[in-house]
Amino acid sequence: MKSMDSTPTMEEEKENQKYPRKIFSGIQPTGQLHLGNYLGAVQKWTQLQNSGDDVTYCIVDMHSITIPQNPAVLRENIFEMAATMLACGLDPQKSTIFVQSSVQEHTELGWILSCLCTMPRLGHLPQYKEKSRTVKDVPLGLYVYPVLQAADIMLYKATHVPVGEDQLQHIQLTQHLSRIFNTKFGQTFPICHAMIDNHDAARIRSLRNPAKKMSKSDLDTKATINIRDAPEVIVEKIKKAVTDFTSDVTYEPEARPGVSNLVVIHSMVSGTPIEKVVAEARAIDTGRYKLRVAEAVVEHLKPIRLAIDEHLAQKNDLIHLLESGAERARQVAQQNIVEVKEKMGLGIYRNVPQYIDMSAELLNALPKDKKKPKASDKETETPIVPKQKLRVEKKSAPQNLAPTFKLDESLASPSVAKKAQ
Amino acid sequence: MKSMDSTPTMEEEKENQKYPRKIFSGIQPTGQLHLGNYLGAVQKWTQLQNSGDDVTYCIVDMHSITIPQNPAVLRENIFEMAATMLACGLDPQKSTIFVQSSVQEHTELGWILSCLCTMPRLGHLPQYKEKSRTVKDVPLGLYVYPVLQAADIMLYKATHVPVGEDQLQHIQLTQHLSRIFNTKFGQTFPICHAMIDNHDAARIRSLRNPAKKMSKSDLDTKATINIRDAPEVIVEKIKKAVTDFTSDVTYEPEARPGVSNLVVIHSMVSGTPIEKVVAEARAIDTGRYKLRVAEAVVEHLKPIRLAIDEHLAQKNDLIHLLESGAERARQVAQQNIVEVKEKMGLGIYRNVPQYIDMSAELLNALPKDKKKPKASDKETETPIVPKQKLRVEKKSAPQNLAPTFKLDESLASPSVAKKAQ
Repeated sequence: MKSMDSTPTMEEEKENQKYPRKIFSGIQPTGQLHLGNYLGAVQKWTQLQNSGDDVTYCIVDMHSITIPQNPAVLRENIFEMAATMLACGLDPQKSTIFVQSSVQEHTELGWILSCLCTMPRLGHLPQYKEKSRTVKDVPLGLYVYPVLQAADIMLYKATHVPVGEDQLQHIQLTQHLSRIFNTKFGQTFPICHAMIDNHDAARIRSLRNPAKKMSKSDLDTKATINIRDAPEVIVEKIKKAVTDFTSDVTYEPEARPGVSNLVVIHSMVSGTPIEKVVAEARAIDTGRYKLRVAEAVVEHLKPIRLAIDEHLAQKNDLIHLLESGAERARQVAQQNIVEVKEKMGLGIYRNVPQYIDMSAELLNALPKDKKKPKASDKETETPIVPKQKLRVEKKSAPQNLAPTFKLDESLASPSVAKKAQ
Repeated sequence: MKSMDSTPTMEEEKENQKYPRKIFSGIQPTGQLHLGNYLGAVQKWTQLQNSGDDVTYCIVDMHSITIPQNPAVLRENIFEMAATMLACGLDPQKSTIFVQSSVQEHTELGWILSCLCTMPRLGHLPQYKEKSRTVKDVPLGLYVYPVLQAADIMLYKATHVPVGEDQLQHIQLTQHLSRIFNTKFGQTFPICHAMIDNHDAARIRSLRNPAKKMSKSDLDTKATINIRDAPEVIVEKIKKAVTDFTSDVTYEPEARPGVSNLVVIHSMVSGTPIEKVVAEARAIDTGRYKLRVAEAVVEHLKPIRLAIDEHLAQKNDLIHLLESGAERARQVAQQNIVEVKEKMGLGIYRNVPQYIDMSAELLNALPKDKKKPKASDKETETPIVPKQKLRVEKKSAPQNLAPTFKLDESLASPSVAKKAQ
């Protein structure tokens, strides 16, 4: 896995050094994993997690709704994805794992960034072009979602984003928006790096057509092994896997993609080098070898399947975990969104002479009750900061206010005059 | 003021009856009011407030940023608008007054609605067309902002929205999005009514060109009286007001728009019927009459100007008030956004067997610590519900899950196989 850094300049890299290395990845809750993306994903995710990186994994349900969703299915898919991530070895002690819609700052920053993004910038993005072809009336969300994606990343000041090559232009949009913000409002965001996995020579292929990658959307249901497939289903699919007319088991990806695909799968699920896998299969034909592969896949997936089932049976725990992850994410998100809003002049943060306790009393705080803050409070009390922090005033506000009120003119109607006519 | 109800059907009106009458209005914090919109606005706002209506007034700073803003100016304008609203008679005890960006559910619902809105629906909206003409590269926010406006209204399930006629199509978009949501996810939102002020015959005109309405954007700075203008400035502007070559003071809006405009202003600020104003000016010429009008305007605006100054000098109190208003708004907003998200299958709300305590312990709740909730908890403990509520499970989830995971295929790369080559 190498860092693609085509875009940050030398100068930007210098600024980037000021930000701790932080990895963010968003995952759509669109159902269970298949063997192909599981084998790639679990390695990448756990590799990153176990390398000691600061890793944030977000189940991006707010992205899912850019395409119509069945609410009951979406709801289950969120839990399924969470259960799968845990079952595949992600550890909430080491990684921040949460559901996007639990952290409101995502859509908040999404809106803010959409005000910094021009329309021509979005229209030519390839994923939009591709997806919008399949929809009659294009939903606005489908057009805007790369901006929300940028918000996901920028909200945590992530420095590295593991993505597929097809997402590169979305990372470039993120870099673009980071640059715009930094230029307009002062250095705030790192210019993130896309992490593209380059071990791309060998990929898990379709069992029915080894010329294609294994894919969830394959119309041939026997082409794809899902990680929750029952053992007998897995055996059946591998038995039916397309190979060729030679019965030897060899590893020749170009000449014999079908059997080579089985060898790769076998090697990966058993943790055995390809040479050894092939050597051990010298005495048997591809028919018998398929059973061996199936057995290895079943064995490898079994604990994962059971763990997913177990997590899904304990939804309460799953919710606790996700809410706990959201709370952790929120702490970073809130701090960063307040910084963004303060810099843009949004809200009522600045020009506050001290941290202010915004707790329960506020509900009753009304204009007659004008208490001056006690000077002693500043020194002695630890400020209780609510939802979003109010910062200590650092400088007084400039006086050159441009009065350009835009209240609709039609509101101005002298009804007294009318009455008097 | 009458309700424009061109759009809700008979059937929708029947559904609308289920929702309490609720008025929402958003105001851009773009500087101080001028006399024209002040005279119309204060009457309308306080009328509605004092009629016992449930009124929510929102300073929509998130809308302001659809056009580039100077952060320092925006920040001051937010406070200025809040101070002005209070000075003009809005009472935070009766009205909910807050700053949009303090309630994150606005942009959250904005995003959700943008996934329900098609692009053709937005492109033809007249305000977008008009504003986008003045900008070189159209910011996405300018295009999307009517959707955020719809979210503002729908977030509170507002039934009535006071707007200018130029906003009618945005109200129609709101109605459209309410209908779409209700159809897709079940009855949730009322179909709101636009409240158009029809007292439009008499409007405050420009002092320099009575053919035009008084406007903040008038290039002639003497054309417009701002409510915080110093007395001598007001006197100067009214002295220079364009009238005609007749020196009598009469009220003839068609034939003598200049002097009639002064008569209307005089009548409104003094609360005196137009006939009486004219009768009392019988002995003097327009030159001397201008001084009388100026005096009346100065006198009327003085307490307001002082009150604005006072509020602005007490920013801490202003912040408390706005945060208190935001807290009140948030209570409604949170309830409604949770309903929306639950219905759409977003987040981790449903399928929760009970209300769950999400407080501090959560930060440490980790997977090994799988405690079954005690049965007794259900009965004895009052649930503490955090940020957003978790609902009691009502039905079990359907089993027909459509597994359509979209993880990028390029993640699947068997590095073990690679290693073994």
